[in-house]
Amino acid sequence: MKAQRVELFVCPTATPADTTGLQRLADSGKIKPDTLVALVGKTEGTGAHDDWGRVWADVALREWTGKFVGVPPDEVAKHVIFVLSGGCPGVITPHIAAVTREWIELSDVGNDKRMVVGRAGSDPMPPEEVGRMGQIRKVAEATRRAMADAGLTDPKDVHLVMVKVPGLTTASIKDAESRGKTVVSHDLTFGPEGAGAYANDAAALGVAMALGEVPESSLSDGVVRRDWNLYSEVAMTSSGGEKRHGEVVVFGNSAASRSSLRIGHAVTKDFIDAEGVRNALRSAGLRFSNGLPADADLSQLVHVFAKSVIPGSDQIRGQRITLLDDADAYQIGKALGGMLVASVTGRTTNYVSGGERNSHQGPPGGNIIAAVVRTET
Amino acid sequence: MKAQRVELFVCPTATPADTTGLQRLADSGKIKPDTLVALVGKTEGTGAHDDWGRVWADVALREWTGKFVGVPPDEVAKHVIFVLSGGCPGVITPHIAAVTREWIELSDVGNDKRMVVGRAGSDPMPPEEVGRMGQIRKVAEATRRAMADAGLTDPKDVHLVMVKVPGLTTASIKDAESRGKTVVSHDLTFGPEGAGAYANDAAALGVAMALGEVPESSLSDGVVRRDWNLYSEVAMTSSGGEKRHGEVVVFGNSAASRSSLRIGHAVTKDFIDAEGVRNALRSAGLRFSNGLPADADLSQLVHVFAKSVIPGSDQIRGQRITLLDDADAYQIGKALGGMLVASVTGRTTNYVSGGERNSHQGPPGGNIIAAVVRTET
Amino acid sequence: MKAQRVELFVCPTATPADTTGLQRLADSGKIKPDTLVALVGKTEGTGAHDDWGRVWADVALREWTGKFVGVPPDEVAKHVIFVLSGGCPGVITPHIAAVTREWIELSDVGNDKRMVVGRAGSDPMPPEEVGRMGQIRKVAEATRRAMADAGLTDPKDVHLVMVKVPGLTTASIKDAESRGKTVVSHDLTFGPEGAGAYANDAAALGVAMALGEVPESSLSDGVVRRDWNLYSEVAMTSSGGEKRHGEVVVFGNSAASRSSLRIGHAVTKDFIDAEGVRNALRSAGLRFSNGLPADADLSQLVHVFAKSVIPGSDQIRGQRITLLDDADAYQIGKALGGMLVASVTGRTTNYVSGGERNSHQGPPGGNIIAAVVRTET
Amino acid sequence: MKAQRVELFVCPTATPADTTGLQRLADSGKIKPDTLVALVGKTEGTGAHDDWGRVWADVALREWTGKFVGVPPDEVAKHVIFVLSGGCPGVITPHIAAVTREWIELSDVGNDKRMVVGRAGSDPMPPEEVGRMGQIRKVAEATRRAMADAGLTDPKDVHLVMVKVPGLTTASIKDAESRGKTVVSHDLTFGPEGAGAYANDAAALGVAMALGEVPESSLSDGVVRRDWNLYSEVAMTSSGGEKRHGEVVVFGNSAASRSSLRIGHAVTKDFIDAEGVRNALRSAGLRFSNGLPADADLSQLVHVFAKSVIPGSDQIRGQRITLLDDADAYQIGKALGGMLVASVTGRTTNYVSGGERNSHQGPPGGNIIAAVVRTET
Repeated sequence: MKAQRVELFVCPTATPADTTGLQRLADSGKIKPDTLVALVGKTEGTGAHDDWGRVWADVALREWTGKFVGVPPDEVAKHVIFVLSGGCPGVITPHIAAVTREWIELSDVGNDKRMVVGRAGSDPMPPEEVGRMGQIRKVAEATRRAMADAGLTDPKDVHLVMVKVPGLTTASIKDAESRGKTVVSHDLTFGPEGAGAYANDAAALGVAMALGEVPESSLSDGVVRRDWNLYSEVAMTSSGGEKRHGEVVVFGNSAASRSSLRIGHAVTKDFIDAEGVRNALRSAGLRFSNGLPADADLSQLVHVFAKSVIPGSDQIRGQRITLLDDADAYQIGKALGGMLVASVTGRTTNYVSGGERNSHQGPPGGNIIAAVVRTET
Repeated sequence: MKAQRVELFVCPTATPADTTGLQRLADSGKIKPDTLVALVGKTEGTGAHDDWGRVWADVALREWTGKFVGVPPDEVAKHVIFVLSGGCPGVITPHIAAVTREWIELSDVGNDKRMVVGRAGSDPMPPEEVGRMGQIRKVAEATRRAMADAGLTDPKDVHLVMVKVPGLTTASIKDAESRGKTVVSHDLTFGPEGAGAYANDAAALGVAMALGEVPESSLSDGVVRRDWNLYSEVAMTSSGGEKRHGEVVVFGNSAASRSSLRIGHAVTKDFIDAEGVRNALRSAGLRFSNGLPADADLSQLVHVFAKSVIPGSDQIRGQRITLLDDADAYQIGKALGGMLVASVTGRTTNYVSGGERNSHQGPPGGNIIAAVVRTET
Repeated sequence: MKAQRVELFVCPTATPADTTGLQRLADSGKIKPDTLVALVGKTEGTGAHDDWGRVWADVALREWTGKFVGVPPDEVAKHVIFVLSGGCPGVITPHIAAVTREWIELSDVGNDKRMVVGRAGSDPMPPEEVGRMGQIRKVAEATRRAMADAGLTDPKDVHLVMVKVPGLTTASIKDAESRGKTVVSHDLTFGPEGAGAYANDAAALGVAMALGEVPESSLSDGVVRRDWNLYSEVAMTSSGGEKRHGEVVVFGNSAASRSSLRIGHAVTKDFIDAEGVRNALRSAGLRFSNGLPADADLSQLVHVFAKSVIPGSDQIRGQRITLLDDADAYQIGKALGGMLVASVTGRTTNYVSGGERNSHQGPPGGNIIAAVVRTET
Repeated sequence: MKAQRVELFVCPTATPADTTGLQRLADSGKIKPDTLVALVGKTEGTGAHDDWGRVWADVALREWTGKFVGVPPDEVAKHVIFVLSGGCPGVITPHIAAVTREWIELSDVGNDKRMVVGRAGSDPMPPEEVGRMGQIRKVAEATRRAMADAGLTDPKDVHLVMVKVPGLTTASIKDAESRGKTVVSHDLTFGPEGAGAYANDAAALGVAMALGEVPESSLSDGVVRRDWNLYSEVAMTSSGGEKRHGEVVVFGNSAASRSSLRIGHAVTKDFIDAEGVRNALRSAGLRFSNGLPADADLSQLVHVFAKSVIPGSDQIRGQRITLLDDADAYQIGKALGGMLVASVTGRTTNYVSGGERNSHQGPPGGNIIAAVVRTET
């Protein structure tokens, strides 16, 4: 039978267009044209929709990857999935994590579950479906296929689902309305009624539906960004106006894996819950008896993926905060997640995205943290 | 002999001008006109020099306190010292902490040291002294008198010195230059070469000189904001153009105290050092054997005072961060300190000031954390 | 018959709480308790919904006016209408304009139309009506009564209608939904889908309906913030969560007036149209033959009220601008209106509000400018 | 004798890396590898020192120009001078202006002066010279040589001098201090005491010295950013830490020119002085008798280069403004200059840089405006 061997390499970057870390990995043979499956990174810049740092990074990485894989830049997406999250406010080191997957032949599988990865694209999503059931269902369907690609059948083995879906643009809204359709919002931002937020949240509910976290019967257009009790604990989603299809990457653990990595996850109970971050480390297999991971424990930690969605409430543990009113709440909300994670992991090279207000990515007030740990074997 | 009994009450505020918490304390007899010695708080608003939230809070609190103490608003400063720090980005709950001091007669003192407080004003500081040796020496002298007022003689018993000094204004610069004097800077901001930063840092060095943290022989105009190896571990300082004198409040522990409170402090080793925050709790007497304070431990914690100065370096534990380049670094830097403290204390009602870059308040890259704990007696 | 004599006095303010200019007007007898009808001003601060500069100004002005008029602060609204617009970015001098109205007995009226003012309150507007036909109709009704109070019957004589209406709050949304009603938006901001923007725009359409600028048959819930071809050329509107009723002030010209002032208005054709500002001056009666007003002409100009709504398009005269993408578009949009007006009027004490994107206040891409001129008589 | 023929083509850009406009000019033969002498543009992005929009534009333009001219990207600077100013807040259309120069043989010259351009590089400027007399003298020397290259001898014929000089970096400060030298500032920003501001202002004084606007005897290290009565009326300067030499481009008018363009300039008397902008158009030869340029006049206007330095005073024409206190004064200050120019030129494709506070580029409170006009011949 076939089994996966997955690796993950974290390369800090000196500028948005810095590919020297990837080149070193390529030169050393750690990543190969046929093993590289995803690049997941944080790029420095404003983090806004017109963040030129992220755009430049995308152009430069796509050019580098195209040369590496041997295809034109505009075909890179067929070979390597890119998840670039813009904005490194505070203590988030700009970096790219390269994910590789090899297939090996196994005679039998054991009980020890190790990291696997799977990918799938969705059917096209027209603008009238964005932020609505159409998008939810198509993400759910692609999530199921990505699970199959990963060789995962039990949703409990899934610890992180990264999704990119189409959002809305001025042009796509015009297109929909010219065909007599309505769209979910005319606000193109990631604000509370923004199309970007609706797209991200429909994608999260799609994951939740595929994994059975939310029954399909509870879902409808009307619950998106309204019923916050419906959520996924493993979905990290993003959206972009330029996309036509959804893309899904599933990370989980399987007995059919010979990786030396294991992934786990947890959710924080509120915005200042450092224990939630430690729980993610525990979930991935780190054992620390003294309440806190020691340096030796942390040396096994390979990477953390975290969301930092701003809570919709102005209360934390019974006290008022003014984060929702901060003029730069988007930056601060993201930065605070970076601090929460870094203060636990003892490092700044963590993937932390967020800053938006409220989400179906994680429970109300809490956030999703996934951790990848190297096992001792 | 006379001994102090010091109390500290934390009142969350609903708006900058909210005095209902203080009024409740007054109504219940917890604060009295002759026991109230200081109001130390965080006010919501921009945190900038023209933060109208802070200005309005100052006006409203001074009016309330004047009525309470029975003096006109402009004489309140003689009775109660105000330290209002503007800006509550992120997870810092706007609040006012009222500090009271009663004098009681004791027959003898024991060994157990408890919290005391002392205050002193300085000689006037003309603009040409701001950010220079003149200001350093006058703050040192006032710190020594505030220690005496607190009944403290050993610098090791001092855990927090809050200082407010004059900064520069367009008018005071003109005044100095018309008298043939120079001033330390024409930049009125808290930027790296700003007069506000120079004033704050001269005040910190004044505290360091008084406490013997820095020998007077090492001090000169030229070291201010240049030699970062000179610093205080207990000074939290601020400056304002409207002031003519310095004001100093010293917090420490003394055997000549019957307070149920004890204060302690520590410095963080870098910007993500949660253990430094825990060390401050330990210094104040909290005992938690398991690496982390339990809820029962935290229930004894009365308050935390923390600085969150942005490191001058773009590296944390060997990795690059972009905080120094963030357009809103001032807000983010302050907010991150709020998260670091809140993630340890499990609450958001912490006093956290900062956001400026580099300081003689604390070691290079690290920050000062002071904690007040209620003892079990 | 009765005729009005209206005056308008512009007082620059040194801080948000500065009432010295008003006090001087009171001391000199220019404003009297029974003639003061409105205070319309720009307050310094962030201009955001939690702009403490504006809040403090409101508290301080209400206290001053209460003492002046002889009523408690919470009854001031029955006597004097307050329109305080927060945020003076760029070249907008913080100021308060006091509007007074005296009634005099006339034997006959002439042909020369001079400035009059009228006020009216609306019926209460429950949250489910905000941003919808309910609000539109109630503003229309109040506008008609304010016109009657001003003695105006012909809409062509109306040059400025300032309106304040209730917006939405977390509490009022809960209230509506608990009664089985829906609300127009869950976004409480002034963003493109924000409740604040919907409330302002419903109010503008209400004015348009009352003045016949838009036929009632064209109006429905669905056109608000959707059909930008429906708009008023004289409505300047704002909204606040704390309000329960609408308030309307109408400014126009009438033969039944003995004012020495005349008001006029125009709309700019796009965001850089200085000629539109000059047209407002011409409309108010300034005659300048040389294309540009001379200093002598401008000395007759008493005040300008201007909106600076950001265009919804990213094109001005065929070229792309990035204003819609600016992180601080709200501040910049308002500031640019301030510059456009100041560069024509030669002064910075202009009332300029705005910064939001798209509005039924003025035509697509253009903005409303009203001017008050002192006639030579 | 040899005469110049200078052309200037303005290409709006759709993204920072958009070279399609330049490619069209190249395809049509309007710019040639041996005639292209400078690219001067505004790039969209934050305008801050880490503006990735500007950085990406520089990389992309240098690559395109290298291919066009036939040299590697790092040698492009020897052939074509780049002046890219980051940040297009408000109504400034991102664009690149290509300047070309051909040499033609003339038998004689007439009286009609037309546009010429000249360039020169300076000697290297070590960090200890930045913002001081060393930099001033080297810019003066290079300005004289650029004038010679342009064929200009009378300073009155010089209407615009664009200069780029080295600023300071952490590394270059270390280098200077390790050699026992001091530097002008440790603040690397463009703030009031920032090294960037000192470098820009030393460059401006260098131009002023070369043109005789300021006598060398008035100049010393101590006057830089102190004596604002010393200034140039034609210098637009910028600085970058990566540079080692200064670069100077001089634009003026000469009888030894067969250009169809003419350049002129004026300074505004204050921040809202639209007449100053009109005076620049007049200086370049536009005749408009009616106070305002008509559309036909403006159709002859090819381009405007403007500074928008924030005044150091908080007063404009006797009234207070709060621009100096605005959190985003840098963006707003630049945007306001864009509006002032656009409201006069009737277009948004103007080059407007600025946002810093106070400068030797232009008189106190005023700004430099240069205009290029196509003559009717």
